[in-house]
Formats: sequence, structure tokens, C-alpha cells
Amino acid sequence: MGVVIPLDESKNKQASIKPLVDLTKADMERVNQLILSKAGSDVQMIPEVANHLISSGGKRLRPMLTLASASMFGYNGEAHVKLAASVEFMHTATLLHDDVVDESDMRRGKKTARILWGNQASVLVGDFLLGQAFKMMVDVGSLEALDVLATAATVIAEGEVLQLSVAKNMETTEDDYLQVIKAKTAALFAAAAEVGPIVARASKADRAALRSFGMNLGYAFQMVDDALDYGGKAAELGKNTGDDFREGKITLPVILAWRRGTSDERQFWREAIENGRNDDASLDHAMGLITKYGSLSDTIARANHYGTIARDAIAALPASPWKSALMEVIDFCIDRVN
Amino acid sequence: MGVVIPLDESKNKQASIKPLVDLTKADMERVNQLILSKAGSDVQMIPEVANHLISSGGKRLRPMLTLASASMFGYNGEAHVKLAASVEFMHTATLLHDDVVDESDMRRGKKTARILWGNQASVLVGDFLLGQAFKMMVDVGSLEALDVLATAATVIAEGEVLQLSVAKNMETTEDDYLQVIKAKTAALFAAAAEVGPIVARASKADRAALRSFGMNLGYAFQMVDDALDYGGKAAELGKNTGDDFREGKITLPVILAWRRGTSDERQFWREAIENGRNDDASLDHAMGLITKYGSLSDTIARANHYGTIARDAIAALPASPWKSALMEVIDFCIDRVN
Repeated sequence: MGVVIPLDESKNKQASIKPLVDLTKADMERVNQLILSKAGSDVQMIPEVANHLISSGGKRLRPMLTLASASMFGYNGEAHVKLAASVEFMHTATLLHDDVVDESDMRRGKKTARILWGNQASVLVGDFLLGQAFKMMVDVGSLEALDVLATAATVIAEGEVLQLSVAKNMETTEDDYLQVIKAKTAALFAAAAEVGPIVARASKADRAALRSFGMNLGYAFQMVDDALDYGGKAAELGKNTGDDFREGKITLPVILAWRRGTSDERQFWREAIENGRNDDASLDHAMGLITKYGSLSDTIARANHYGTIARDAIAALPASPWKSALMEVIDFCIDRVN
Repeated sequence: MGVVIPLDESKNKQASIKPLVDLTKADMERVNQLILSKAGSDVQMIPEVANHLISSGGKRLRPMLTLASASMFGYNGEAHVKLAASVEFMHTATLLHDDVVDESDMRRGKKTARILWGNQASVLVGDFLLGQAFKMMVDVGSLEALDVLATAATVIAEGEVLQLSVAKNMETTEDDYLQVIKAKTAALFAAAAEVGPIVARASKADRAALRSFGMNLGYAFQMVDDALDYGGKAAELGKNTGDDFREGKITLPVILAWRRGTSDERQFWREAIENGRNDDASLDHAMGLITKYGSLSDTIARANHYGTIARDAIAALPASPWKSALMEVIDFCIDRVN
């Protein structure tokens, strides 16, 4: 028994991020230059720590969203490059701080900055990048764009605190989870996509469309990320299956398995997540329960729901290579699991 | 091409509200008594206006949610009856005010109170019922329950204002729509379900579970309602197909058809919704576009998403007739379209 959600006929068999990469190639080179120069400092340790993460091979999806969402409305100045770099700095700062808070040892297959340079350096270099991000925004001079990005920065920080307060608590609801991933991922995706139409002086409706696209893409992206942690191509993405489990992170696959489980099974989850019994045998058992209750496929089904909203959000924009590339990115983010 | 969302195996073939009605029957009689007595006043017009709507055959789903969500945690005092009556009064007050704001002539197959007694009486009797609702809540003496319901009242009022500001604006996004239906429907469903565990002194986790159940059921309920307005069993529910269209209300089926449409089709929607060209031929054309873009089935697919979240929200509660009845109400609310 199931419900069929029809997808748009333009759904790609092999969705790829390549069209977006190709379209933003020239501007991304300028963004990357700017990132390198703004991560520079006479304080030797700053570029070292910053570049360790900056050069570790993230997809740079967020700055590409900013570039695309400005260019698709005919913008061809400099502001979108600066805002794209700001967005990436905000993201990098968050990662540096996250690794300290989560006491993470590895990220993207490399030792984390806090392991190599210590917690204090990670926190302070994160603050430095945040400062540089704001300086670049101010340089652009758009109070509206500043407002959008500053609000996102606050929401992200608030979300980190919320995540602390729900950490290792099996009673975490799906609503709590949604609030956490909104703050942690969707808010910055939304801001990244909204500042494009702002600097391009597009209409209020276009701005709302891109914001909604970014927000819902962010939800879908994070849900798929959280599903990947329990299977799929985790290894290819430089993640180890079960990292979230070992850190006691409560993501949607776990929430669903817990809620759908028996009381014995819930006892197991409490032991594993709340009391840290997270050895390999426990991980195997957890994966079994996640499979038993269809928690991964239902997490993907939820992600698809948000993907469909993202698609409809920009459906009314005139056809263009930019629009097609953004549409394909939705599928790309979701299809990563297969 | 589509994605299959598996539903819980307990999905009922013929979902019904009957188990919930049966379980709450005795308490609902007390609620109905209380409603009649609290709608009384020496000012003759008050009970006349109030009873016109109160006796017009609503399902009283909201007070049943309050009763069930208290009883399922073993509560057997009086507070849940008073809170259930408060919830129904809040709902009735909203309907009275809504009909004035929307200039509606008919509701549930009868002339609206504002047609029979005028706008002023409708507004003031609504205020009276809201006052009585608060008095009953205060009588219960739970500050927590008061807080939850007072917050819902504020959110509802805020949502009405938001609805005004997006009215007849085709640029309304799905996010705007979600915000409107959260305020207009989901917030009261959530509050109705949350005050039960509060008076039953259930755990914080149970309270969060019921709140999430109510919120997501409310989303699903309103989306299905909005789909029904463009087909399905509208007539049986005392609604006329196309009422929303004629009032220029922008609901999800319209948002999806608009965003997915061609620029000619969007011109049609603007003419119809923004400029009021809403004769029968226009309605036929609108229905054609809604069918063409699968907007109704996708609205139901969205509703199903929220239904699934509602289901998972209470999945972890121990099995009981109450839990089964609430689960069945989710399906009942969604299956109304068929």
C-alpha cells in the first residue's frame, strides 16, 4: 500500500551538479580567489587553519546558489561574488565551531582543525571568518542582503544551541529535528539563494521564490545527508557509515526507528544513544532496526517532499539554463543516496 | 516516474472517525451541555447567534482531540471537558469572524450569522465566545494549558491578518500558504491535542508527541479541505465546488497550477483571482488547469506527508484504543477526498 507522488516529467535519470558547476565556473574562480585572499592574515595560523578546511574539497554548493540566483536575473556586477564568498565563509566558520562542539576528529576524510591546531584556534579562526564574511557583506552595501545573511547567522547559532539541548535525548521529536536542520542547513541555503535576486534587483516574488527554493532544498539536502550516514554512498563522500550513531546524534532515521519500535528496541536506542553503547555490534543492530522500520526510505520520502516544494517554488520562473541547473541540483541532492 | 511512499501497514481501507466518536461519546455529551450553557446570556441575541453556528453540525473534531488526548493518559476529572469546550468556542469564534472578513454568505449549507444578524453581531458574539473560552480555561486553573491556548489564539489572529495581506495575490508562495494554514488550522489542532496530556500530567515527551500529532494532522486536514473545494465530495460536506475560487482564496491547488502553468495560463489566474473574473466558465477553466498539472493529487500527496509525520509522532505511545482511534482519524481526514 503506498501513495505515488508524481515527479515533474523533467526529472533527470542521472541528475548531476555539473550544469550548475559549468554555468558558475568563471564566477566561482573569482569567488575562490576572494576566499583565499580574505582568509589571509599576518597572523600565520589563520590562513593555515582556514585553508585546511577551505581546501578540503567541499562542493561549494552554497556559493554556487548565490551566483546562480543573481545571474539568472541578469546580474553581472561584483556583488554576487562577494556575497557568495561570505556565504562560504559563514559555512566554513560553522564547520570549525561544530567540530569543536561535537568533539569531531575527522571531516571530509581529513583530521579536523581542532585535532591539528586545537579547539581554541578552531573557535577563533571561525570567528575571524565570520568577521570577514560580514566585512564583505558591508562592502557590497546592500542593507537587504546584510539583513538576510545576518539573520541567517543568528538562526544558525540559535540552532546550534537547540541542537545541544536535544542532543542524546531520545525523546527528540521530528519537529525538533526539523527545527534543528532548518537552523543548521536550510536557513543558510535559503539566505544564499535569496541574496542573488536582492542584488539583481529582481521582484519581491522572485526573491520569495528563490528563498523558498533554497530553504526546501536545504531540508532535502540535510535529510539525505542524514540518511547517507546509515548507508548508501557514505564512504564515497568521505563519511563513515555510522558516524552520527557513534556521536549520539539524533537524526530522522533514528527518530523514525525509535518511534516505530517496540519497547525493547527503544531500550536498545537509549543504551546506544543516551548511554554511549555504540560499538560495532550496536551499530549493526541499529542498522537492522532502521531497515526493519523502513526508516531510511521514509527519510528519503520526506526529503522528496521538500524537493518537490523547492521545484514548485521556482517553477514559475521563465525557462533558462540557470533554472534547469537549479532544478537538476534538487534531484542531484536527493539522488546521492542511490 | 514517481516515488512510492510506503504507508504504515495499519492503514485502514475504510478509515472512519467513528472509533474516536464512540470513545469520547460520554464526555462529548458533557462538552455539548457546557457549550450550550456557556453560550447562554441574558442578552437574547447572543445564544441565538451562537447556537445558529454551534448547532449547524460541525464534526467537533477539535474538542474530541482534547478529550482523547487527556483520556489516553488515564485522566478522568473535569478539566478536559472544560478545555474541550474552550477549544470549540475558539473555533466557533474564528468562524464567526472569518465569515465577516471574507463576506461569506453560506457556511455548512446554511446562511451565515452575518447574513441573518449582521456583521456587528457576528464580530461581537465571536468576542463573547472567546471571552467565555478564556473564562473556562481560567476555571481549569492550569497555567500551562492557558499558555498553550492563549498562544494559539494569538497565532490564529496573526494568521488572519497574514491571510488578508496575501489575499488575491497570485505571487503567494507555498511557504506563505503553509504559514496561513498553520495559523488558521494547525495551531488550534496542536493546542487542542497538547492540553490533554497537560491536564493528565503526562510526560513532556508525551506532550510533545500529541502537539506534533495535532499540528501535522491540522496541516493535512486543511490541505485536504482545500483540495475538496475543487472536487471530490465537496457537496456532501456542505461546501460548493469552487467556493474558494469565487472568493479569490489562494490555496495550494491554485498555487501549484499557477506556478506550473504557462504565462498565458498565469494571465488567466490573475484575471480570475486578482480581478475577480470568477464566473462558471472561469471555474471550469480553472478546474481544467488544476487537473492538467496534477495540482489536486499533489496537494493530497503533500497532505499525506504531514499525515505520516502525525502518525510517527504518536507511534511510540503504548497501544490503546485511543491511539488507534487517533491514528484512524489521520486516514479519515485524508481519505475524505475519495
